[in-house]
Amino acid sequence: MRAEIITIGDELLIGQVVDTNSAWMAERLNEQGIELFQITSVHDERAHIIAALDEAFSRAELVLTTGGLGPTKDDITKQVLCDYFHTRLVEDEQVRLHIQRLYADRPDVLNRLTATQWQVPENATILENRVGSAPLMVFRKDDKMLVCMPGVPYEMKIAMEEQILPYLEHSAFSTQHSAILHRTLQVTGIPESRLAILLENFENSMPEGLHLAYLPKDGIIRLRLSSYGDLTEAEMQAWVDRLQTLTADYRIADSDQPLEVLVGERLKARGATIATAESCTGGRLAALLNRHAGSSAFYWGSVVSYDNSVKEQVLGVPAEMIRAHGVVSEEVVRVMAEHVRQLLHTDYAIATSGIAGPSGGTPEKPVGTVWIAWATPEGTTAECFHLGHLREQITERACMKALVGMLKLLDK
Amino acid sequence: MRAEIITIGDELLIGQVVDTNSAWMAERLNEQGIELFQITSVHDERAHIIAALDEAFSRAELVLTTGGLGPTKDDITKQVLCDYFHTRLVEDEQVRLHIQRLYADRPDVLNRLTATQWQVPENATILENRVGSAPLMVFRKDDKMLVCMPGVPYEMKIAMEEQILPYLEHSAFSTQHSAILHRTLQVTGIPESRLAILLENFENSMPEGLHLAYLPKDGIIRLRLSSYGDLTEAEMQAWVDRLQTLTADYRIADSDQPLEVLVGERLKARGATIATAESCTGGRLAALLNRHAGSSAFYWGSVVSYDNSVKEQVLGVPAEMIRAHGVVSEEVVRVMAEHVRQLLHTDYAIATSGIAGPSGGTPEKPVGTVWIAWATPEGTTAECFHLGHLREQITERACMKALVGMLKLLDK
Repeated sequence: MRAEIITIGDELLIGQVVDTNSAWMAERLNEQGIELFQITSVHDERAHIIAALDEAFSRAELVLTTGGLGPTKDDITKQVLCDYFHTRLVEDEQVRLHIQRLYADRPDVLNRLTATQWQVPENATILENRVGSAPLMVFRKDDKMLVCMPGVPYEMKIAMEEQILPYLEHSAFSTQHSAILHRTLQVTGIPESRLAILLENFENSMPEGLHLAYLPKDGIIRLRLSSYGDLTEAEMQAWVDRLQTLTADYRIADSDQPLEVLVGERLKARGATIATAESCTGGRLAALLNRHAGSSAFYWGSVVSYDNSVKEQVLGVPAEMIRAHGVVSEEVVRVMAEHVRQLLHTDYAIATSGIAGPSGGTPEKPVGTVWIAWATPEGTTAECFHLGHLREQITERACMKALVGMLKLLDK
Repeated sequence: MRAEIITIGDELLIGQVVDTNSAWMAERLNEQGIELFQITSVHDERAHIIAALDEAFSRAELVLTTGGLGPTKDDITKQVLCDYFHTRLVEDEQVRLHIQRLYADRPDVLNRLTATQWQVPENATILENRVGSAPLMVFRKDDKMLVCMPGVPYEMKIAMEEQILPYLEHSAFSTQHSAILHRTLQVTGIPESRLAILLENFENSMPEGLHLAYLPKDGIIRLRLSSYGDLTEAEMQAWVDRLQTLTADYRIADSDQPLEVLVGERLKARGATIATAESCTGGRLAALLNRHAGSSAFYWGSVVSYDNSVKEQVLGVPAEMIRAHGVVSEEVVRVMAEHVRQLLHTDYAIATSGIAGPSGGTPEKPVGTVWIAWATPEGTTAECFHLGHLREQITERACMKALVGMLKLLDK
């Protein structure tokens, strides 16, 4: 079963919006055994949308579109689909009632433009958009299917999970029998090319239908084994086992789970808590650690000490220490970690201090220099890293290094 | 001048990686007067890449690809392009010297796989990838052009800025004379459909060649006027002026600049500083405020008080107050803002406390309830918001509300 995604909207093609929908949808489709063949982003333009639909249907049995379903004039997807499927807009009583209920306490939304949202194509199956006014539409084209969703990410996600994926399963459009298997390991501390040499025999011995991909990002390489229906679970597991053995020295995770989730799981398992003291990472490490539901069980808080006065007055770093060693130093970052651990009464703490640039670098401590310390019940360790040249890259990589270090300490 | 982007990589189609490159490239191309017509994401698969190239060249004069240029076996773009352009790989002395210099202090990277990176297609023009081993390749096809870049975002960005955009300009592939004009306003506090009714006469009076788009996100609607060579700067400005007047009651910004940048600019202009005390936003507000270079001029730091003990012990919230009113209350969030302002010695402070869910909601304070306080030299204000049902959405919207409130106070 092959699917394609068409994302519709000028905003995607002038760079005003990053398409985060497609990756999320791709993951969900894969889980249901549906292979995503291509993603295409097109303008809010009639001929362009129609050409993209024709092309997608020439390659795939299932086409999903997002975008262009708002009540404003720039959104034309619904009308274009009416023409494409030779149908017309009719008022849908159920959609009307749903939208009127949805905005019952917001009379300013229930205006004549919103009323156009309960006009739907006559020959489409309408699924309920629980959280928005744009109807979810399903069209049949011979033995193929088109599913149309709004482009607002949270509306799309709720629509997919509550309506569309169950509908596809019901319509036998998912194919759990020909399982798509993806298994991912995460490694660090080895360059991609060295890793590929290490795995050369492994790769050469892989059967047809098994694929190995290397995904380097922020100092971590995700190694993914994929099979599109050719291998059984047991066969896949045997290959995963071999890969785990070969990468033992560099492996930090046996899944694609984000590192902050792995750290959180280990902390929860031992009933331990963590705090952070952040200079160059500026709150990003905190945001990662409390990103997922349930993080209040282990994540206590953070002191973001961007200015030196905060390091001195809140994190107890002596002014003389900063004068003697600089804020980006082992001494300072150790005090930051130990102090925040005491201040917030946690079992563990991580501190970061670095030069994110573009200014502030010196010959001894160039932009990209980052000190990280980990305070634990058993003592404190610290390490210096050189994490590149770009501000965003440096702060992202520093977060990853901080989490990798924590994970290693917790797995000791 | 029309361009298309082809992003190559299985990781995009199984949802393991979000394509952030395309939006960034789209923006840069637009600035140079190049219209991006379509974005296509394809597998690391020979036939698929070739089909995508053929289709893109049938629509556009310039095609840019990212991805598939690593030294590992899963990356096949370079070899496929050799076949597509009927050429072969040859060793490039300059690329070899560059890569050897780049990794001079990392002998583990200078292995035989990395050596394949200085094999380049004989008839391609090679541009220098200053920060990585994958060569940047330019191919000519009749009067059209193909530009190939690595998919690693920071390598792509440096390549575009330092090499490819200047090269396109030099090759007369940019067309500054037929200027693409985009102008964006940001409004808040009005539903999209109401705004569209408000702007109905405006839209109906717009000339051919002028487009208005509505981009709602996290409670803010960006209104974008676009012209692809049809309007002069002065004509565009006249339409922008009209739009500004019509949206005066809701307008918070006259550009597409992120709100944190606008807040930062106003703070810098008056030499003022800011701190944050964050519960439900968990460091995201801090990370936004210090995201851009130069933020150390106004951003002092943050206390992320995820656990109540941190609110009590670091932010001075009395335990009785939490018992009497709950942590998500006007009383608590006011103390948080005022205390962090004092603790960090700043002029302004923002505090957030809310229920991000999925658990923790009550009938009186359901998931999505967020209190925000703004402490200023003139006093403290606070406001309660209901920001939806999804954890991620609630925290993102809370950050936007916090910044909108700050912006309004600074613009008073």
